[in-house]
Amino acid sequence: MRFDGREPLQLRPIHIETNYLKHPEGSVLISVGDTKVICAASIEDRVPPFMRGEGKGWVTAEYSMLPRATDQRNIRESSKGKVSGRTMEIQRLIGRALRAVVDLEAIGERTVWIDCDVIQADGGTRTASITGAFVAMAIALNGLVEKKSLTRFPITDFLAATSVGILGTGQAVLDLNYVEDSSAAVDMNVVMTGNGEFVELQGTGEESTFSRSQLAQMLEAAEAGLIELFEKQKNALGETISGKIEANRRK
Amino acid sequence: MRFDGREPLQLRPIHIETNYLKHPEGSVLISVGDTKVICAASIEDRVPPFMRGEGKGWVTAEYSMLPRATDQRNIRESSKGKVSGRTMEIQRLIGRALRAVVDLEAIGERTVWIDCDVIQADGGTRTASITGAFVAMAIALNGLVEKKSLTRFPITDFLAATSVGILGTGQAVLDLNYVEDSSAAVDMNVVMTGNGEFVELQGTGEESTFSRSQLAQMLEAAEAGLIELFEKQKNALGETISGKIEANRRK
Amino acid sequence: MRFDGREPLQLRPIHIETNYLKHPEGSVLISVGDTKVICAASIEDRVPPFMRGEGKGWVTAEYSMLPRATDQRNIRESSKGKVSGRTMEIQRLIGRALRAVVDLEAIGERTVWIDCDVIQADGGTRTASITGAFVAMAIALNGLVEKKSLTRFPITDFLAATSVGILGTGQAVLDLNYVEDSSAAVDMNVVMTGNGEFVELQGTGEESTFSRSQLAQMLEAAEAGLIELFEKQKNALGETISGKIEANRRK
Amino acid sequence: MRFDGREPLQLRPIHIETNYLKHPEGSVLISVGDTKVICAASIEDRVPPFMRGEGKGWVTAEYSMLPRATDQRNIRESSKGKVSGRTMEIQRLIGRALRAVVDLEAIGERTVWIDCDVIQADGGTRTASITGAFVAMAIALNGLVEKKSLTRFPITDFLAATSVGILGTGQAVLDLNYVEDSSAAVDMNVVMTGNGEFVELQGTGEESTFSRSQLAQMLEAAEAGLIELFEKQKNALGETISGKIEANRRK
Amino acid sequence: MRFDGREPLQLRPIHIETNYLKHPEGSVLISVGDTKVICAASIEDRVPPFMRGEGKGWVTAEYSMLPRATDQRNIRESSKGKVSGRTMEIQRLIGRALRAVVDLEAIGERTVWIDCDVIQADGGTRTASITGAFVAMAIALNGLVEKKSLTRFPITDFLAATSVGILGTGQAVLDLNYVEDSSAAVDMNVVMTGNGEFVELQGTGEESTFSRSQLAQMLEAAEAGLIELFEKQKNALGETISGKIEANRRK
Amino acid sequence: MRFDGREPLQLRPIHIETNYLKHPEGSVLISVGDTKVICAASIEDRVPPFMRGEGKGWVTAEYSMLPRATDQRNIRESSKGKVSGRTMEIQRLIGRALRAVVDLEAIGERTVWIDCDVIQADGGTRTASITGAFVAMAIALNGLVEKKSLTRFPITDFLAATSVGILGTGQAVLDLNYVEDSSAAVDMNVVMTGNGEFVELQGTGEESTFSRSQLAQMLEAAEAGLIELFEKQKNALGETISGKIEANRRK
Repeated sequence: MRFDGREPLQLRPIHIETNYLKHPEGSVLISVGDTKVICAASIEDRVPPFMRGEGKGWVTAEYSMLPRATDQRNIRESSKGKVSGRTMEIQRLIGRALRAVVDLEAIGERTVWIDCDVIQADGGTRTASITGAFVAMAIALNGLVEKKSLTRFPITDFLAATSVGILGTGQAVLDLNYVEDSSAAVDMNVVMTGNGEFVELQGTGEESTFSRSQLAQMLEAAEAGLIELFEKQKNALGETISGKIEANRRK
Repeated sequence: MRFDGREPLQLRPIHIETNYLKHPEGSVLISVGDTKVICAASIEDRVPPFMRGEGKGWVTAEYSMLPRATDQRNIRESSKGKVSGRTMEIQRLIGRALRAVVDLEAIGERTVWIDCDVIQADGGTRTASITGAFVAMAIALNGLVEKKSLTRFPITDFLAATSVGILGTGQAVLDLNYVEDSSAAVDMNVVMTGNGEFVELQGTGEESTFSRSQLAQMLEAAEAGLIELFEKQKNALGETISGKIEANRRK
Repeated sequence: MRFDGREPLQLRPIHIETNYLKHPEGSVLISVGDTKVICAASIEDRVPPFMRGEGKGWVTAEYSMLPRATDQRNIRESSKGKVSGRTMEIQRLIGRALRAVVDLEAIGERTVWIDCDVIQADGGTRTASITGAFVAMAIALNGLVEKKSLTRFPITDFLAATSVGILGTGQAVLDLNYVEDSSAAVDMNVVMTGNGEFVELQGTGEESTFSRSQLAQMLEAAEAGLIELFEKQKNALGETISGKIEANRRK
Repeated sequence: MRFDGREPLQLRPIHIETNYLKHPEGSVLISVGDTKVICAASIEDRVPPFMRGEGKGWVTAEYSMLPRATDQRNIRESSKGKVSGRTMEIQRLIGRALRAVVDLEAIGERTVWIDCDVIQADGGTRTASITGAFVAMAIALNGLVEKKSLTRFPITDFLAATSVGILGTGQAVLDLNYVEDSSAAVDMNVVMTGNGEFVELQGTGEESTFSRSQLAQMLEAAEAGLIELFEKQKNALGETISGKIEANRRK
Repeated sequence: MRFDGREPLQLRPIHIETNYLKHPEGSVLISVGDTKVICAASIEDRVPPFMRGEGKGWVTAEYSMLPRATDQRNIRESSKGKVSGRTMEIQRLIGRALRAVVDLEAIGERTVWIDCDVIQADGGTRTASITGAFVAMAIALNGLVEKKSLTRFPITDFLAATSVGILGTGQAVLDLNYVEDSSAAVDMNVVMTGNGEFVELQGTGEESTFSRSQLAQMLEAAEAGLIELFEKQKNALGETISGKIEANRRK
Repeated sequence: MRFDGREPLQLRPIHIETNYLKHPEGSVLISVGDTKVICAASIEDRVPPFMRGEGKGWVTAEYSMLPRATDQRNIRESSKGKVSGRTMEIQRLIGRALRAVVDLEAIGERTVWIDCDVIQADGGTRTASITGAFVAMAIALNGLVEKKSLTRFPITDFLAATSVGILGTGQAVLDLNYVEDSSAAVDMNVVMTGNGEFVELQGTGEESTFSRSQLAQMLEAAEAGLIELFEKQKNALGETISGKIEANRRK
């Protein structure tokens, strides 16, 4: 039994509140246990300089934490005048992951800006960000289709992320909270599409290592959790948008 | 009648949700119409270097907006690597205002960090921040009293803020939303204590000027709104804390 | 009687030396007691990106202090690599104040850059900057008229600023020097036009508050000082330019 | 057959020149095909502030490229004034990987600084950096043992890294050069210890995804390459140091 | 005959106004023709970290230009967030030059901060800064002697600087103004002590070169100008301080 | 006899390895004793904004040291977020020096980027950089001639640099290594063309001064060393390129 009473392969409670903010083209407040992230998707009608004239779009992400999202207050990155390595790593991951399920040609020379702002942190903020950002992005891009700015719905599959790890006891567990994450020997983030393909695997032994059989165990655990997360995304998006995604996947 | 159907001296709907976050010593989500700000108060057991050894505490504030709190996405200040003049002006104002109702000797060599993060903006974000931050700070400092870390409750009075302005029509109005704020000829922020004393007055003619009688009209309007705001703060804080504040004010 | 022997409503000696520098289109050295500021106005034949194509001009200001303008040496902002919140607040104030008396349409797509560099500081540097910058700007814009680059003189009224405050004794005083400013309970900066309208009011209780009657007292004091400052500006500018300003005001 | 004539599971030629520089405690020039990295290990007799007093050491890494290590000249990060997200990600990876095979208690309150400077880049610079840095670090730490500053040799196993990927043709290949890396559908970096345990797995579908069987193929390929890399490290380090590592591993 | 009517070896008019500012321990306004620099010397009772505990003092300099010291307005270095290479080069030169005539042991663990702020620029700002800074520093250090904080006067000789150059015509000239400086083929700054020894020679062919005989001609010219500059410094400093310097030189 | 056994006017062993890197248009690894610098020349087909449309080219340089090029590890300038004054001074010197022997009209609107990266430092890194960069630049520009991108070879003469100094003993010495450089009373860098003209002279008394006869002695020493350096450059460049330079010089 885990610290917070969960089974090894049990996710924390997940809630995805759509259209949480009035200004962005798509937005959600996602909660994964006590981890809460506001994900906003903004559409900009141009692409970064290095992509101009190619007729393709781009998806990019930024990630931040409120100073008091954590137990100890963190200094704002704006006050420090620079973005930390951890933040950069996470926002590059979010953008890369989302691009794997977007048909960039289909969105034309537009940028989808994803903003993931962690309001409250209790482990798994990067995977919650990806899972929530997918929903916000789907809403925003569907809005373009409804306004006839796009001729076809550009998202090719569902996409979600979760973390798995090996605790000190050798037990493989799903969806680590902060306490577990801090003490786990191995920690792996798995980003997967609705049809079960990997988009990103990042496994790290924290002053520790892991064997091939432990890897297999963790992938098993992740898969179980991700199937549940895809269901939450479908419910949050509703039938119309989910249906469009399913239709694209089957192609 | 105003753009959104309000009377000239009518506030927008106000909600103050206390203990919005689990980590900070005090926190609220304040809504003033569509303007929503998360205010968190953190207690640090030391003061900035320039104050060490004086036996006094300090209150300081930081203010930020999510990139998509506004109609157009703003570049993050952490990405730009510097805090804008507007942000600095606002966070200096919030800190200065709150210090006016805190007995800094009574809190000892501690810093109260106030974080005001605007989730959604529709005008009046700095005044909503002050009004909400006061409540978060009161909760945090009361926590210190309850833990016996402080021997007396250090807040000397209520403190709230609102904006008033003169529209293009010459009409004085209370609590401007974004549309009104953008078009107002004159805009004034008023910070006041529960006993009706000014803490800060900032009146600005935007490529325009104002007369002494217009000043009087605006102050009248502000006062009406502030009385209502103090009531909202009392309700949010509950009888125990509100009672301590009232007791201190009467001294 | 005050620290330096002045009456409560007495300004310090004011000197405005015009054309202090050879390169700028307009420049002054203004002294307000021991406070000395070089104000330079430069004309640039374009506006910031956000204003292009609107056919209007812009006025913007920068403010700085020499490291040893003060009793203790300050670290240069260029060495620190960033501009302080105080500096930003002041330069935003100077620009905003000056724009209130410039017909921005009349100057076309030009920017007036105002540089206020404090050579020696003894309180009231921001108000001295505004008062001096107005004169430098008037000279620079008049130069454009004389070169026939402008068809009409674009300044609509005089503009000056001073500070007032309430000392610990409760006494309202005009034009605070550094010692008074440091110990005043309340401090207010007043920017006014030649016809007695307010452009900006910034009143702050420093860990203190002020009542409506104290506000009235301070405004009274400010007005007396400002009338004297307008006279100094007129003398510095000479009859021709002063006449053009008066003529515009009367319209 | 691959672009440069290699078999799918063939590494590029590897050379590790030890003691390449005269000042550092340990240094190598590692070549992996045309990729060349100078790795230097420096010993500092203290740890970062957050670790003081714990009696443990630390290993940290920095990574950089000469501006003309690449086909197109890159702007220096020192000129841009900030380190890119890619650089941060890589240097965090190098440090984390090396720490997995160092007994941090055994080195006492010392920091091992690893500097990986890419002189010439042709794909795989981060994995070449890890493989080379391990050798430089082993030399530096062995130096401490020889000087009797350490009582036991603190490296617990060999550590090397390589990349594997899936080309557009579906072929799994080992040790991608720049041309292959740019066009690969999937790219995975594998960091492994001498006894075959994973330290870090980072697999990324570049606007693409990968299945579990492709993952298995890539891990197979990586393992073959890593065994060869451990041999190169042994040869470079010589019998004495290699023997100490082997002895520690067997414990 | 030169552009401004001077003879080849004629300096521009020099004025040195001492005690120009009220706060610094020593200050001057130096004019060399239309070039005007405020030089301030501040005494700090400690040295930089790298010198602590050695019982020696330090002299360091900072240099800046007002934005409109020049014909075209320059962007402030504080706004750009960094100090330019040219500024760094100049401030390092000023500090190094002054240290050559200060007995650093004699001043104890103190730092002399030199601030050279160019109010108006017309060529030769760095040499005017050195010549003026010497006087400000002498006044400040003499103040320490008079307050009995120092037991002996620590300046060992006079120190001044000037520029010389070769015009396009091949003519060697002394003290180049901006127009001459911009068009000169060769430009040399010479810093010399009262007894005729060089402290610093910086000769640069601007997309051009110079022969050994041209070098000799320039040194001749510089020496003539420097003798005059020492006289100006003596007059500015007055007999008491000048006498102490002369006395030290003779030792 | 010197510390390392050299005669006063003896250079350290010089090696220039051309085409050291595969990507740049020209590159060398230059060793001057234990000082080793990688010099790369890159051709960019445009000039900086301030030069556009003038039909002329530009030569600019950047200089950096690996963190462990020195005995003590230096913090990277990219980590500090800014380039030091020393670095700026050196890179400005390198660029200025090289421009003296390039016919900027002849290269058209192109920029030659010179990157000097010090791999190992033992004094004289800036002069080794100039000497090596000249060779890298000659190779790169000759490449343009061979590709027929240029109609004439644009380098007008050889260019090399060395240092000379006066040791504490009063002895003038050539090509100071780090130990000598740290203790020398006077230090001078001399940049000269193949026909014996000066391009740059920078002589500095380090808390010391020098006489005109010491200057003459140092110039004598420098000239002897530079003649040897020109021979090394000729050998490195080979007959074809050297012949073109000689031919241009004779014009």
